[in-house]
Amino acid sequence: MPSVNPYYDKLPGSYLFSEIGRRVREFTAAHPRNRLIRLGIGDVTSPLPPSVIRALHRAVEEQADPEGFKGYGPEQGYEFLRRAIVEDSFRNLGITPEEIFVSDGAKCDLGNFQELFDLSCKVAVTDPVYPVYVDSNVMAGRGGEWKDGRFSGIIYLPCNAENNFVPDLPRERPDLIYLCYPNNPTGTVLTKDQLQVWVDYAREKDCLILYDSAYEAYISGPDLPRSIYELEGARDVAVEFRSYSKLAGFTGLRCGYVVLPRTVPAGRAAGGGTDLWSMWLRRQSTKYNGCPYIVQRAAEAVHSQEGRAETRTLVKKYMDNARVIRAAFEETGFRVYGGEDAPYVWVKLPAGLDSWSFFDRLLHEAEIVGTPGAGFGPSGEGYFRLTGFGDPSLTEEAAARLKRMYKAIPE
Amino acid sequence: MPSVNPYYDKLPGSYLFSEIGRRVREFTAAHPRNRLIRLGIGDVTSPLPPSVIRALHRAVEEQADPEGFKGYGPEQGYEFLRRAIVEDSFRNLGITPEEIFVSDGAKCDLGNFQELFDLSCKVAVTDPVYPVYVDSNVMAGRGGEWKDGRFSGIIYLPCNAENNFVPDLPRERPDLIYLCYPNNPTGTVLTKDQLQVWVDYAREKDCLILYDSAYEAYISGPDLPRSIYELEGARDVAVEFRSYSKLAGFTGLRCGYVVLPRTVPAGRAAGGGTDLWSMWLRRQSTKYNGCPYIVQRAAEAVHSQEGRAETRTLVKKYMDNARVIRAAFEETGFRVYGGEDAPYVWVKLPAGLDSWSFFDRLLHEAEIVGTPGAGFGPSGEGYFRLTGFGDPSLTEEAAARLKRMYKAIPE
Repeated sequence: MPSVNPYYDKLPGSYLFSEIGRRVREFTAAHPRNRLIRLGIGDVTSPLPPSVIRALHRAVEEQADPEGFKGYGPEQGYEFLRRAIVEDSFRNLGITPEEIFVSDGAKCDLGNFQELFDLSCKVAVTDPVYPVYVDSNVMAGRGGEWKDGRFSGIIYLPCNAENNFVPDLPRERPDLIYLCYPNNPTGTVLTKDQLQVWVDYAREKDCLILYDSAYEAYISGPDLPRSIYELEGARDVAVEFRSYSKLAGFTGLRCGYVVLPRTVPAGRAAGGGTDLWSMWLRRQSTKYNGCPYIVQRAAEAVHSQEGRAETRTLVKKYMDNARVIRAAFEETGFRVYGGEDAPYVWVKLPAGLDSWSFFDRLLHEAEIVGTPGAGFGPSGEGYFRLTGFGDPSLTEEAAARLKRMYKAIPE
Repeated sequence: MPSVNPYYDKLPGSYLFSEIGRRVREFTAAHPRNRLIRLGIGDVTSPLPPSVIRALHRAVEEQADPEGFKGYGPEQGYEFLRRAIVEDSFRNLGITPEEIFVSDGAKCDLGNFQELFDLSCKVAVTDPVYPVYVDSNVMAGRGGEWKDGRFSGIIYLPCNAENNFVPDLPRERPDLIYLCYPNNPTGTVLTKDQLQVWVDYAREKDCLILYDSAYEAYISGPDLPRSIYELEGARDVAVEFRSYSKLAGFTGLRCGYVVLPRTVPAGRAAGGGTDLWSMWLRRQSTKYNGCPYIVQRAAEAVHSQEGRAETRTLVKKYMDNARVIRAAFEETGFRVYGGEDAPYVWVKLPAGLDSWSFFDRLLHEAEIVGTPGAGFGPSGEGYFRLTGFGDPSLTEEAAARLKRMYKAIPE
């Protein structure tokens, strides 16, 4: 048989959320009558907003009609959606519709984007981190060796209570820097000044920032950037990844997009002045076939006046949940981060309690599914993630269960 | 800036269908009132079948309902769809639902699947060929140098009028063999005996066959395999790629699947007896997030009794078109292949006429868009592809225009 990609073997065990799924399935098989509350995987629970549902029905009717039927769409996505995105979110940031690439979600885009770079490129990630950034680079061969919970080829930028979750600039120059704000998993944010430090660093050191802003809709605080293009000079050194999943409940509908300014140059080995925009277009034209027309119409509806009002209600509901979770953990004596400009609550565990043990304990004693911090990287050990994406009454119930479980302060 | 993937530069010009799109846009910009007939890109034109439309509306309603709402789905696709696929298409072939991986289309699957293999793997393709097989391997670094219309690192297996479009076994052993039957672009087929030769060869030489059967619904002749698993021994050496695009008009809805038997072993460099099934699951879990729930319900409807009847009608309509095109070219004196068990008609051009020149001529003189054979590989030069996917009356009109253009035999 043909030799396989040797780097798959470097990945330690299974993908984080698959492992959580496995443990949960085991538990529910053994306790089929118990009522589990899932605050683990960041999946939304509210139905799609009415304006999105109406747009879907309308688009399905078009697909039934010989005149309205749409087959293959433009590789970058339909112009109606790219225009709506720019108008709604990038109006004064100098981004044009041709700089938007519509896709079936930010996970795919973030996983695939590294294909554009040489295998020698050095990757930096904040730690803890959304596993896709690391795993996709390891699968491509940029990981080096797995040892003591980290890959020798990846630059980890610790974010923890000690540095208030603001990563220090790396000592070694990376080629690619993955940043995610509001952050998954810690729920923390960077101010404009703090993010400007990174843009300036990227300009000075000739790095590229891959900026995941999948949770920008959850920002409420002042002086927090929703897009990296609000920062001076970002247009030349940053690519931004967005998603409708958490903004409008599209986790099962699948739509996202990449913002890729034409001004981002391609580095060495691209003869003849290629830019990253052209390379990504080529990648998507060759290995992708576009987001379904009906889903693009649904995404367009999110940007309508009505859609915007509906998603604000949705976001508020999830943020109310996050506050309930925060309060419950604080009351039981935990230190808690995030949950103010992000749907994620990041709980510091008592000294000596590791995060997979806490996962099992919370699952078995309170029947709550969370996510162990260690699953997000070495600096995630000793922390635990919960999400505000649950049903409000179940979230209240989870808070009550937690308080019953911890009658006293755990430390 | 970070060094980019150096292999993108090896690709000659743009992706075939993007180049066709560019020339067509130029023509329509210059002649906005002309009525172009598009028989080039293999895109369907009939609206989605009624049972699919109903399934979509129903699924959209579920997404509006707090009880029915579906977020992230299983990475492999929903079991209801995987069961329907097996029941409808693989009942007696020993394939189980867990061996099906649902996706957003065969193009993505075929483009991504090569990621599972070592970069040293040698790739063989029939020539002419669907460009995605070659381009995705070139982008990964398996192409070698581009010279005289071919990549030095790829094994080309010529298929032409001289060998009746039945490829010879390669002289040099490949690791991966891409086969597509019914064939895109030639529209030709292999009998069971002819395909068995390839399965036997793969078993003997320890190769893997990547079998693209996106057009199996168009087979009408006896003794033609619809799935490679109809062949003795294929389960251990073949992965099959299927799509709803041409079966049920899903080009704008996006759904396909990979059939990956658990018995396909992974070759050297996979320590501990990994199988390809586990690697693909890992790949999809890490870099993909599933096909939309509503689209999977639509695909399920294709396998219902009503859906099957509706798609048979659809396929018949496109095959009638193919016959009209065949007849028109034959009448004007061309030699024609395909179009009997496949929606593609493969026209041999008169000696000395190259396929891009014929493309421009057909575009400017008859206002018909076809696809130049050279776009599919060196052995495609001197041929031209037309598709039966157009509207029947426009296809008749195209036939009439062609006959007017060629009042006499062109040779």
